[in-house]
Amino acid sequence: MEIEKGAGKLAKTLRVLILDKPGYLGKLTSAIGMSGSNIGDLRIVRMGRTHNVREMTIYVDSDEHLERILENLSNVEGIIVEEVIDLVHQLHEGGKIAMKSRLPLKNIGDIRKIYTPGVAAICRDIEKKPELAWKYTSIPNMVAIVTNGTAILGLGDIGPVAGMPVMEGKAALFDHLVGISGVPILIRSKDPQVIIDTVRNIAPTFGAIKLEDIAAPECFVIEDTLDEQLDIPVMHDDQHGTAVVVLAALLNTTRFSGQMLGKSVIGVIGLGAAGMGISKLLLSYGVKSVIGTDLKESAREMLVAAGGRGGTLQDVMQEAQIVVATTGVPGLIKSEMVRKGQVILALSNPNPEIIPESAIEAGAAFAADGKSVNNALGFPGIFRGALNVRATRINNKMLIAAAKVIAGCAEEGELVPSILHPEVHKKVAEAVERAALESGVVRHWE
Amino acid sequence: MEIEKGAGKLAKTLRVLILDKPGYLGKLTSAIGMSGSNIGDLRIVRMGRTHNVREMTIYVDSDEHLERILENLSNVEGIIVEEVIDLVHQLHEGGKIAMKSRLPLKNIGDIRKIYTPGVAAICRDIEKKPELAWKYTSIPNMVAIVTNGTAILGLGDIGPVAGMPVMEGKAALFDHLVGISGVPILIRSKDPQVIIDTVRNIAPTFGAIKLEDIAAPECFVIEDTLDEQLDIPVMHDDQHGTAVVVLAALLNTTRFSGQMLGKSVIGVIGLGAAGMGISKLLLSYGVKSVIGTDLKESAREMLVAAGGRGGTLQDVMQEAQIVVATTGVPGLIKSEMVRKGQVILALSNPNPEIIPESAIEAGAAFAADGKSVNNALGFPGIFRGALNVRATRINNKMLIAAAKVIAGCAEEGELVPSILHPEVHKKVAEAVERAALESGVVRHWE
Repeated sequence: MEIEKGAGKLAKTLRVLILDKPGYLGKLTSAIGMSGSNIGDLRIVRMGRTHNVREMTIYVDSDEHLERILENLSNVEGIIVEEVIDLVHQLHEGGKIAMKSRLPLKNIGDIRKIYTPGVAAICRDIEKKPELAWKYTSIPNMVAIVTNGTAILGLGDIGPVAGMPVMEGKAALFDHLVGISGVPILIRSKDPQVIIDTVRNIAPTFGAIKLEDIAAPECFVIEDTLDEQLDIPVMHDDQHGTAVVVLAALLNTTRFSGQMLGKSVIGVIGLGAAGMGISKLLLSYGVKSVIGTDLKESAREMLVAAGGRGGTLQDVMQEAQIVVATTGVPGLIKSEMVRKGQVILALSNPNPEIIPESAIEAGAAFAADGKSVNNALGFPGIFRGALNVRATRINNKMLIAAAKVIAGCAEEGELVPSILHPEVHKKVAEAVERAALESGVVRHWE
Repeated sequence: MEIEKGAGKLAKTLRVLILDKPGYLGKLTSAIGMSGSNIGDLRIVRMGRTHNVREMTIYVDSDEHLERILENLSNVEGIIVEEVIDLVHQLHEGGKIAMKSRLPLKNIGDIRKIYTPGVAAICRDIEKKPELAWKYTSIPNMVAIVTNGTAILGLGDIGPVAGMPVMEGKAALFDHLVGISGVPILIRSKDPQVIIDTVRNIAPTFGAIKLEDIAAPECFVIEDTLDEQLDIPVMHDDQHGTAVVVLAALLNTTRFSGQMLGKSVIGVIGLGAAGMGISKLLLSYGVKSVIGTDLKESAREMLVAAGGRGGTLQDVMQEAQIVVATTGVPGLIKSEMVRKGQVILALSNPNPEIIPESAIEAGAAFAADGKSVNNALGFPGIFRGALNVRATRINNKMLIAAAKVIAGCAEEGELVPSILHPEVHKKVAEAVERAALESGVVRHWE
């Protein structure tokens, strides 16, 4: 299982002058490792006669933590830290995405083809036969990434503009992984009706809508209403993208625990966007019993309406063979609550409801935290597949097909594959295409 | 003066096998020229032993016109048309723009920098200090290109989706000419309030708003309201982009007619988006007398409110030394209406209110049609300049500065420079920056 170390930590890059003798690089890495920092990429910058210069990315808890590490390193003979580079900030300068022309523009002839007068013929063709927009425009490859900034990562309600780096990150992943044009749309409103109206008004621009980091419970009515009103796919990633990757992970936990998913009692702790999405997808998959808990009674009622059961935290820990927690409350699950043989996914980032090692010590058959369950395994292929067949929506059949393929791409010892698995996104897209065609949710032109 | 031939015509590319002997290429071009078609690019595809293959782009009036040309060519010895390629349609397949990542994504380290966990630090920084969004996100380089499709080119109300190829064309020009990310936003509504609300709701995503091909009179209240409510520049290109290029052209007509712009009576025929924008900018530039006419009394009243005078078509042609027509009505200006020494810009595309040659014959000192007055000379540099200094609006001072620079870039004999003039967009941006700074419409952070 790939462990995503360093969630919630700060990435810093040290430029270090190292004496070119055996053991000195070891001294450096040991000193950093001992200080409680994780080491990321290590690149050679310059090979000198007596010294080499390397850049090493490390993950620290805070600026104070970095200071302590630098202090320690200053006492190590043969190691000189020349500079601390904040690569993350450096990379973000000027933003991470750009709208680019796909065609050359070198002479007046080019302009006359892509702009006036040539473009008029294309406009007229689409006016006569609207489905030609799917052939001659970028619309069917554009996905709006819509947020109001009320639930950005684990940071909460920081507003849409502060959430932009996440939206750009999703757009960058869309481009790199599946060639989709992700267009961030920041909406400064917490009123579900405003968000619904706004998205509906601009929907003709896009082949699909990806709702992103919108808080529960508003996210539910926003997604449901748009899904009903629009003839293009609408998916709230925090609900369904997460659910797909969790289902994939659970399919693979059977390798570790020997439990059958369908016959298990599954407990869901925290019924926000992720918890509700997970519960609904598990029920749709055929899990017989989902018991969920949340501080809000309305959330428990929503689960009951969806076919699950409500209960207390104690009920869930008592009854469930498999427990999935998405509460955002670190340490919520105490060791004494864990039952022997339980599977526990404590998914809150950066700090889980129970540290996997503690859960195993307390008797769990298998435990993992949120670092290995990354949405980015799901949404790129799901949207690619939906767009490829001009799906009108994304249904549970498509999501379950995606989860199965993701689970199947995991190698021995992995819960889910790496985001950079060479085949996973293509395979997810293909599975989603098939499921969309089989379930008849593809566009038919009059 | 550069004549933009072929507006409103269809571009077709012929792949032709030509006998490699002197005179045969001449036979081909003569046959096509005689048929009333314009010839565009001519490329050599393959050099054979006895024959060459060339691709030649021609502009025809209709498919029937093309058929007649092919019929004629079939009788020319040594010339064989192998294929007719519709390059414009071919180029449009899959759309003209794409949202791309500006950063590499080759390994998990890259993902951890541009996505989680690295991105969280950037989000937190922006939450604490919102102006950092201008440094660390793509927002300040993104311009929404907003249309509801009610006045697409000269095609009229064809709807937003059929207008998408034009919006993509503008985005492609933004990218190529000034490196701005243009984001088409198609709104399916004719209600000004819906458009205002929708744009205001998504405005946090953008550094500026470009309204595009929205019909008059709705375009006026939409622009005015958004300009008032938003703290980023809002510009309706059909009004102000056109006005800038027309003002530039008029500044240069003095070279031909010897008239002083400020002291002239200028007549504006048609007071839609373009006509009103032109009138207002001319008044702001200092033209003493603008007399305008329109079929709608409300349009004439709007001109009076802006400081101009209303009148009939006859009044305008009688009184004005310089006439600018943007009515969309071909042949509206009869030869007998033209007064000796008048300057006439008959700008409706593809067919002008009076053919320049006819106007000259009737005594005009100078005449031109809309093919030489292309918006794309104005908007790229205007927005680039406004974004560069974080302007909060685009005012007349900035527009006039842009017009002067554009006029100055024209070479001897040109009314305005080519869109691909190597310096014009950069110079426009610089002039707009200076004007914005001088007039104090730049963003101040608290």
